[in-house]
Amino acid sequence: MKFSVILGNLGNTCDRFLSTGYKDQPSKAEMFRQAASIQGVAGVELVGTWDITAGNVAEIKALLEDNELACVAIFPDHFAQKRWGRGAFTSREPGIRREAVETTKEMMDAAIELGCATLNLWPGQDGYDYCFQGNFDEARDQLLDGIRECARYRPDIRLALEYKPKEPRTHSYMARAADTLLVALETGCDNVGVTIDTGHAFAAGENIAESAALLLRNKRLFHLHLNDNYRFWDDDMIVGSVHLPEYIELFYWLRKKGYDGWYSMDQYPYREDGRGALNESIRWIEAVCRKMDAFGPERLDSLLAEGNAVRVCSALREMLGLV
Amino acid sequence: MKFSVILGNLGNTCDRFLSTGYKDQPSKAEMFRQAASIQGVAGVELVGTWDITAGNVAEIKALLEDNELACVAIFPDHFAQKRWGRGAFTSREPGIRREAVETTKEMMDAAIELGCATLNLWPGQDGYDYCFQGNFDEARDQLLDGIRECARYRPDIRLALEYKPKEPRTHSYMARAADTLLVALETGCDNVGVTIDTGHAFAAGENIAESAALLLRNKRLFHLHLNDNYRFWDDDMIVGSVHLPEYIELFYWLRKKGYDGWYSMDQYPYREDGRGALNESIRWIEAVCRKMDAFGPERLDSLLAEGNAVRVCSALREMLGLV
Amino acid sequence: MKFSVILGNLGNTCDRFLSTGYKDQPSKAEMFRQAASIQGVAGVELVGTWDITAGNVAEIKALLEDNELACVAIFPDHFAQKRWGRGAFTSREPGIRREAVETTKEMMDAAIELGCATLNLWPGQDGYDYCFQGNFDEARDQLLDGIRECARYRPDIRLALEYKPKEPRTHSYMARAADTLLVALETGCDNVGVTIDTGHAFAAGENIAESAALLLRNKRLFHLHLNDNYRFWDDDMIVGSVHLPEYIELFYWLRKKGYDGWYSMDQYPYREDGRGALNESIRWIEAVCRKMDAFGPERLDSLLAEGNAVRVCSALREMLGLV
Amino acid sequence: MKFSVILGNLGNTCDRFLSTGYKDQPSKAEMFRQAASIQGVAGVELVGTWDITAGNVAEIKALLEDNELACVAIFPDHFAQKRWGRGAFTSREPGIRREAVETTKEMMDAAIELGCATLNLWPGQDGYDYCFQGNFDEARDQLLDGIRECARYRPDIRLALEYKPKEPRTHSYMARAADTLLVALETGCDNVGVTIDTGHAFAAGENIAESAALLLRNKRLFHLHLNDNYRFWDDDMIVGSVHLPEYIELFYWLRKKGYDGWYSMDQYPYREDGRGALNESIRWIEAVCRKMDAFGPERLDSLLAEGNAVRVCSALREMLGLV
Repeated sequence: MKFSVILGNLGNTCDRFLSTGYKDQPSKAEMFRQAASIQGVAGVELVGTWDITAGNVAEIKALLEDNELACVAIFPDHFAQKRWGRGAFTSREPGIRREAVETTKEMMDAAIELGCATLNLWPGQDGYDYCFQGNFDEARDQLLDGIRECARYRPDIRLALEYKPKEPRTHSYMARAADTLLVALETGCDNVGVTIDTGHAFAAGENIAESAALLLRNKRLFHLHLNDNYRFWDDDMIVGSVHLPEYIELFYWLRKKGYDGWYSMDQYPYREDGRGALNESIRWIEAVCRKMDAFGPERLDSLLAEGNAVRVCSALREMLGLV
Repeated sequence: MKFSVILGNLGNTCDRFLSTGYKDQPSKAEMFRQAASIQGVAGVELVGTWDITAGNVAEIKALLEDNELACVAIFPDHFAQKRWGRGAFTSREPGIRREAVETTKEMMDAAIELGCATLNLWPGQDGYDYCFQGNFDEARDQLLDGIRECARYRPDIRLALEYKPKEPRTHSYMARAADTLLVALETGCDNVGVTIDTGHAFAAGENIAESAALLLRNKRLFHLHLNDNYRFWDDDMIVGSVHLPEYIELFYWLRKKGYDGWYSMDQYPYREDGRGALNESIRWIEAVCRKMDAFGPERLDSLLAEGNAVRVCSALREMLGLV
Repeated sequence: MKFSVILGNLGNTCDRFLSTGYKDQPSKAEMFRQAASIQGVAGVELVGTWDITAGNVAEIKALLEDNELACVAIFPDHFAQKRWGRGAFTSREPGIRREAVETTKEMMDAAIELGCATLNLWPGQDGYDYCFQGNFDEARDQLLDGIRECARYRPDIRLALEYKPKEPRTHSYMARAADTLLVALETGCDNVGVTIDTGHAFAAGENIAESAALLLRNKRLFHLHLNDNYRFWDDDMIVGSVHLPEYIELFYWLRKKGYDGWYSMDQYPYREDGRGALNESIRWIEAVCRKMDAFGPERLDSLLAEGNAVRVCSALREMLGLV
Repeated sequence: MKFSVILGNLGNTCDRFLSTGYKDQPSKAEMFRQAASIQGVAGVELVGTWDITAGNVAEIKALLEDNELACVAIFPDHFAQKRWGRGAFTSREPGIRREAVETTKEMMDAAIELGCATLNLWPGQDGYDYCFQGNFDEARDQLLDGIRECARYRPDIRLALEYKPKEPRTHSYMARAADTLLVALETGCDNVGVTIDTGHAFAAGENIAESAALLLRNKRLFHLHLNDNYRFWDDDMIVGSVHLPEYIELFYWLRKKGYDGWYSMDQYPYREDGRGALNESIRWIEAVCRKMDAFGPERLDSLLAEGNAVRVCSALREMLGLV
C-alpha cells in the first residue's frame, strides 16, 4: 500500500464561521517536513493556488526532493478564488470556462515537471444551489468539452474526476460514482477516470466497496482519498473514527480487483494536530489490513460466495479478535 | 399529459407492524372501477401475483375493456413471494434466477395480449443488507444477463428498470438514476431504459429534474412513477404534499425534452382513501402545469439561461400567484 | 450485563412487499427454547397480541419457567391491529384512546403475574404523516393523560417510553430522547421513563452515548434495545454490523453512570437465522466490553477529560488490538 | 408580522474553500441602508465581533437611528475567534468559559443601550466532533452554569438559545428543540428560552410547526430565524425555495398560539445579491400568509380537528389557487 497525504491537511483549516482558521499556518517547508515524517508516507498531493502555482514549480520540486516525497496528484484550483464562485468548467461566462481549462493545462505541465502522473479534478463550484439554476444539458456539454480538451492535451497524464454530492454547492454536477463514471466514459478518453473520496461517497449514500467495485470493473478507479464522517456531510475526519466494516469491505475489494494506486489521506483536522490525524489514519488502515491478511482473504471470498450475514459478522469478529 | 395509477394503490396496504393492512381489500372489479372514475386517468399499471398472473390475463383484459383503461405497464413480481427473498435476478440459486427471467417473459407475453408496451422491472430483492453480502461483480453479471435475455425475448416490449436506493434491502443493486442508466446501456439493448419513481429519487438524494434530464438526454427515460416523501424514505405520499419547486422543475424538463410517456401515480395511502389520494395527486399536477403554462415556459428558459436564484424565486412566486 | 431478546425476533418477519414473511413461523415453545439456548440470555420481552394476551398468561408463565427465563418487559400492542391504525393514545376516537389505556393496564396486570417490572410502551401509530394532520397540543394532552393514568394504575410497574423518529408514521409523537424525557417528566410520575432503542436513536440523528448520558443524568433510562442500522432507517440489524466507536462510547457511559437494566436485543432478521443474529449480537457486545475492561475504563476517563481526538482514536486502536 | 434581517447577510459570505468570500464586503453604513430599504423590515440583528463590539455601540446606535431600525437581537460572538475553537461555555479551559460569560454580559449591556430585548445565544463551538470527546455531564453543568449566570445578570434581557444539530462541530450540545427547551427549563430562569432557526430544525429532522407548538406551549419560543435548505445541511437559502406545506403549517401554529416576536431572516446568500435574497424571502412569507388569511384559519382549525390527509391536501391546493 502506497500512502500519501494532501499537503494542506497539515496547515490551517477554516470554516465559514471562523474564516481565519482554527490554527496557525506553518510554512510550506514545515508541512513537507511533517508529511515526510509520517511513517509510510511516500507522497503528497498539492492543491493549486494554495500549494502550487505555475510560478513555484521549481521551489516545490526542491521541497519534494529534499523530503524524498513523490508528487502523487495535483488538484488544479477550480474552487478557491472568487472567479470560480459560479462555476469553472460550467461557468455561464465563456472566459471563465476558458480559464478553467487553461488552469488545468498549466497544472498538467507542472505535473510533468514534477514526475506526477495524475491530476485530481474536483470542480467543486460546478453545480447549482437552487431549482431552475442548473442548466443541465448545457452544463454537461460544457463539462465534457472542458474535460475532453484537457485530457487530449496530455494523454500521458490521467485525469481523476473527484465526485461529491454537495458542498460548496447544494448540488454538484459530478455527484456520485456512477454519474461520474458516465462522464468519464462519455469523454471517450482513456486517461479520464474517477477518484473515490470515501467521505464524499458516504455522504452520497454509497457503499464505498460497491462504488470501488463498479469503477474497478470499468478500469476507471484512478485515485483514492480517505477520511471518515457521520454520513450526512463531508466532515473530513480521521479514518476509522466512525466506520469499520465498510472500510474492511473496501480494502478487500481494492485488493481483490487489483487497485494499485495511492491511498491518500484527505482530511480537515480543524481542531486537531494535522500530523497526528493523518498518522493515526494510516496506522489504522495498516492495522485493519494486517488483520484481514492474517484472517485470510480466501476465507472472505468464501463468505462472499455464501452471502450469510450471521457468518459474515462472526468472521469479522474473529478477524478483529472480538472473541 | 397521460395519467395512470397503479391498481393496488386502490386496495389495502400493509407494513411490517400491521401485516394485515390498514384497510379492507376491495374486489379487483371495484379497484378498476375506482381507477376509471378518477378524472383524467386513462390507464392502470398491474403488479404480478397481486393483480395479474399468467392465468388471469383474459379476466384482466375484460376489466380493462369494461372500464376503458389501457394497461400502461406490468410489474413482474420479483419481490412478493418467499422464493425471491434473497434476490431474483441475482439470487445465489440458479433456479431462482431462471424463474426471475421466466416470470418476466410470462409477463411480457401478457403485456402483448393486453396491448401494453412496457414492463416496469423493479427487482426489489436484488441487493444486499450487510457488508460482505453483496457479491458485486457476479451480481452485476447476473443482472445484466437476466435483463438482456428478457429484452431480447421481445424487442417490441420496453423494459423500464425502476431504481430505488433501499427497501426491502438496505442496498439495492439498481439504486440511482446513473447506476441504472449504466446497466441499461451495458445491456446493449435499445428496449431497456429506466423508470424514475420520484420518491425513490428523492430518497437517493437526487434532484428529480436533473435525473430526468440525464435520462432524456440518453433517450432512456421510459416511465415515470409519482409520489412524495420527506427525502429519507419511500413514504409514498400524495404528490405535492411535501415538494413543490422540485416538481415544477421536473415538469419543465419533461416537457422541454419531449417526454411523451405516462404520468403514473404510485403511492401507498396506508390510512387514506386510495382513490382520494390518487385523484388529489393528479389534480395537483394538472394545476401546477397549468400555472407553468400560463407563466410561459419561454420565460423559464430565460431564467435558466441566466441562473439567478433571486429571479428564479421571484418568478416561481409570480407563477403561483404568491404576490 | 443482563441479556435478553425480544421473543418475536426468533419468528417470522415480514415487510410491506412480502407480507407473509421471509421465513416460516415456529411455535411459541420453539421460540422460547431458542431464546434460552443463546448463551447469556436470561430473559425475554413479549409483544402484546403477537406473543401475549390477557388470555394466555398462564401458558406464557409455564414457558418462562420451563426455560428458566425472566419476563424482562412487555410491549402492550398499540400498533398491530387495524383499530390502532390512526393512533392509540392520541386517536381522534375517544373509544380507541380508552382501549389504548385498558390494553396497557391489562398488560400491567399480566406483568405482575409474570414477575415483570417493566412495560415498554411503543405507541408507534401515535404520530402523523402529513402537514396539518398532527393536532400537536391536543395530542400531547391525550398522550400525557393516557400515560399518566396507566402509570398511576400500578406505581410498582415502570413504564419505559420507547421513542422512534418515524415508522409506521412519517413522524412519531415520541420521536427523540429529549422529547420523550420531557413527556416522562411532565407526567409527574416517577415510574415513567424512557427506552433507548439504539437503532431508533441513530435514525433520529443522535449520538447514542449522549442520549444515554442525558437520560441517566435524569434517572430515566429505564430500558435498552439493541440493534444496528445505516442511520437513515430502522434496519434492525445485528449489533456491530455497522457501528463500532459509538457503541464503545455507549457502553462506557452506561457503566460510568450505573445503568443496571437489561441489554435487550431487538432486531428484524428478515432473511437471517434469528437465533444466529441475536447470538452474534450478544457475543459482539460481550467481546467489545471485555476489550474495554482490559484497556481500563479509567484510561478512558482521562481521555474524556482531555478531549483530544487523535489520542482517543489511538486509544481505541490500542483497545481493539489494531496495532 | 414584524420582519427583521441579520445584518451580515447583506455582506460578504465565505466558506471553507473560498475563505475570502464570494462577494465584496460593503461598509456597515451601506448594509444598514440596504436593510432599511427592504419593504417591511423594521429591525436588524447584530453579530458580536462582526457587527458589534463593546467599543462601537454608539456608532451602531446612530446607524440604527439614522435608518429607523430596531435592534432586534444581538448574537454574542462565541464562534468566530480562535479562542472559541474548542468551545466557549463548555471549553475545557476555565478562562475561556469565563470569557464566554463576560462576552455575553457585555453584549447584554450593549443591548440595554440599544433598546434591544433579546440576546440570541448560539454557542456553535460548544459540542464535539469525535466519540469520547464530549464530556457530556460536565459540559451540561458548564452550559447551565454559564447561561444561568448570564440570565441572572440582567433578568430584563431575554436569552434565546439557538439550537442546531451540527456545524461547526459534528455534534452541538444544543442540537434540537426539546433538548434545548430542557436546558432552558433547567436553568430555572424565566428569561431563558429558545430560538427556532427553521433551517436548523429541518436539518435536525424536525417538523418546524411541531417544534414551534412545543415551545409555545411551554412559553419559551423567544425568537425565530428563517431560511430554507434541502434537509441535510444548513444551506441557509431563500425562504420558500424548497419547502412550502411545512411553512404554511408553521405560520398557522405561530398565529394560533400567539407568537408575537420577530420573523427574522437568517441566510447565507453566498452567490446571490443579499438584499434580493432577503427581500424575496419576506415577500414570499407575506404572500403565503395572505393566502392563509384569505382561506380562513378557522377552516384550517376544522381540518386539523379532522386529520384527513386528502382533505388537507385539497385545502392547501385551494388556498394556493392550484385548481
